[in-house]
Amino acid sequence: MQSSEELLEIIEKHIEQLELNNPPAELYNPISYTLNTKGKRIRPLLTLLACQMFSDNIKPAILPALGLEVFHNFTLLHDDIMDQAPIRRGVPSVYKKWDTNTAILSGDTMFVLAYDYVTNSDPSFLVNVLRVFNQTAREVCEGQQYDMNYETQENVSLDNYIEMIRLKTAVLIAAALKIGAITAHASEEDAQNIYDFGINIGLAFQLRDDLLDVYGNQEVFGKPIGNDIVTNKKTYLYIMAYNLANKTQQKALDTAYKLNDRNVKINGVMEVFNQLDIRKTTEEMIENYYQKSLTFLNAVSVPKKQKAELYAFAKGLSLRNV
Amino acid sequence: MQSSEELLEIIEKHIEQLELNNPPAELYNPISYTLNTKGKRIRPLLTLLACQMFSDNIKPAILPALGLEVFHNFTLLHDDIMDQAPIRRGVPSVYKKWDTNTAILSGDTMFVLAYDYVTNSDPSFLVNVLRVFNQTAREVCEGQQYDMNYETQENVSLDNYIEMIRLKTAVLIAAALKIGAITAHASEEDAQNIYDFGINIGLAFQLRDDLLDVYGNQEVFGKPIGNDIVTNKKTYLYIMAYNLANKTQQKALDTAYKLNDRNVKINGVMEVFNQLDIRKTTEEMIENYYQKSLTFLNAVSVPKKQKAELYAFAKGLSLRNV
Repeated sequence: MQSSEELLEIIEKHIEQLELNNPPAELYNPISYTLNTKGKRIRPLLTLLACQMFSDNIKPAILPALGLEVFHNFTLLHDDIMDQAPIRRGVPSVYKKWDTNTAILSGDTMFVLAYDYVTNSDPSFLVNVLRVFNQTAREVCEGQQYDMNYETQENVSLDNYIEMIRLKTAVLIAAALKIGAITAHASEEDAQNIYDFGINIGLAFQLRDDLLDVYGNQEVFGKPIGNDIVTNKKTYLYIMAYNLANKTQQKALDTAYKLNDRNVKINGVMEVFNQLDIRKTTEEMIENYYQKSLTFLNAVSVPKKQKAELYAFAKGLSLRNV
Repeated sequence: MQSSEELLEIIEKHIEQLELNNPPAELYNPISYTLNTKGKRIRPLLTLLACQMFSDNIKPAILPALGLEVFHNFTLLHDDIMDQAPIRRGVPSVYKKWDTNTAILSGDTMFVLAYDYVTNSDPSFLVNVLRVFNQTAREVCEGQQYDMNYETQENVSLDNYIEMIRLKTAVLIAAALKIGAITAHASEEDAQNIYDFGINIGLAFQLRDDLLDVYGNQEVFGKPIGNDIVTNKKTYLYIMAYNLANKTQQKALDTAYKLNDRNVKINGVMEVFNQLDIRKTTEEMIENYYQKSLTFLNAVSVPKKQKAELYAFAKGLSLRNV
């Protein structure tokens, strides 16, 4: 059984060894830049952790894990264009450092690379992995579309919002885990439980992200604070605040969301959030999803000590401040 | 043995039956719009033609054929953003009818759909088809990158240019044929010959495209005439003209390429093309590639009558005026 730290080292080593020096440099340099700007590697790590929960041999999980990480990074390249997000992991995002066309095409190429890594994995589980991968990729696109729709749509309900982040964020976390289980030839029931564990951890993770966008430390978080507010994202915090607000507070939110000055806008929205103690409400909701996730991990039919790393990692994801 | 017309009907029927009515409509409507704006369906048709050259049963080729058509249309959505091409097949391109974000994300979703159709094809050849598909998709991205590089790069040689169109256009034509052969369990040698046939037909096809951009009939061609000139594309016509031009003509080309007025620019470039009889030079080059393609089709180890449809189609592609 290897620790998360040891597995992360394995992932980093494999990412360093990816052959990304082909010409044309204009296409592959942004891919190198993206993959070497160290992210948290959450998805490939989850794949390896899920695999080693069922099997001593994590090798079969490595190529799918790399595929998932490259796929995730591809979505970031395109999302950053669509969301006009100039900073990613503390450095300029690709469309900003190069240009939009570069981010489109290097992103497309990463998508191909992701499929290539998956395709080269063991034929004994290839079709099953591909089915999960395809469905997930499609849902991630749908989630991004809802996210964009909600920027201009009035009356986004909490249910709408949770479904959006399930698609945009949670399914990929869940798929990473399920694919790890598949590569270890786990039973369908176990694979489903680990998937449902992932969905709930993914929802907790995204709500934490919403929270950190407003209440995080910019240097630790790697992105400017308040970006969701500036881009009129209807986050969990905003929707919950709007639901709890009285008429005066609703009007204050409406007014603030129409402002152009970045700081005035952020401060206007945060004032209402603070009045309504939205930070606490959000933390409670994160705790709910975290607890629910544990019921699914508990149900997986392997001895508890083999789940230790996943229990620890789930806790870390839900309670993280970065 | 079915005719190209019969196979095209089969393709159209399957494309009509694709389930593209899922929500969110903002994501799937542009996909429907793109797939139902009837293209020439060259790639899926080639897959079916190649399959039926080796086998009486074309069914195994249908899902990969759909995957190739959807993949091709995905590249058009993204290319049209990058090339700022407002018209496609006589109607507004997706980024123009909707917006850039829509074209990015609906394109990404089409890419997933393409892989999904391929993944659902027969497991007996799935890995082989995926390997060809992945390599081809990557090469198409590389070709598009070179194409963009060459818009601003001085001194693009004819060799550079032929390599660029090989990647951007010919490999997908060739892959469509090879994948058809693979689905019919053709030998590796036959699959390679049909691939090389496709490369040469693809080069002829693209040179014809270059020619039609300048000398085609806008209504028949479906795109405004002279778009390559307006966007400073270094096409075969331009590079050949520059190679053959005297100092005065080179200067005339340089001057014309820097102009902003669409019609003045097109007329300035065409004047030099006409002086140098570039139309004839290009037609000779197309004929060369067409003849070369036939040597590979001749070498495929099936009776000649089973190749009849492919011979006819290759001739049509090289000599088309649309």
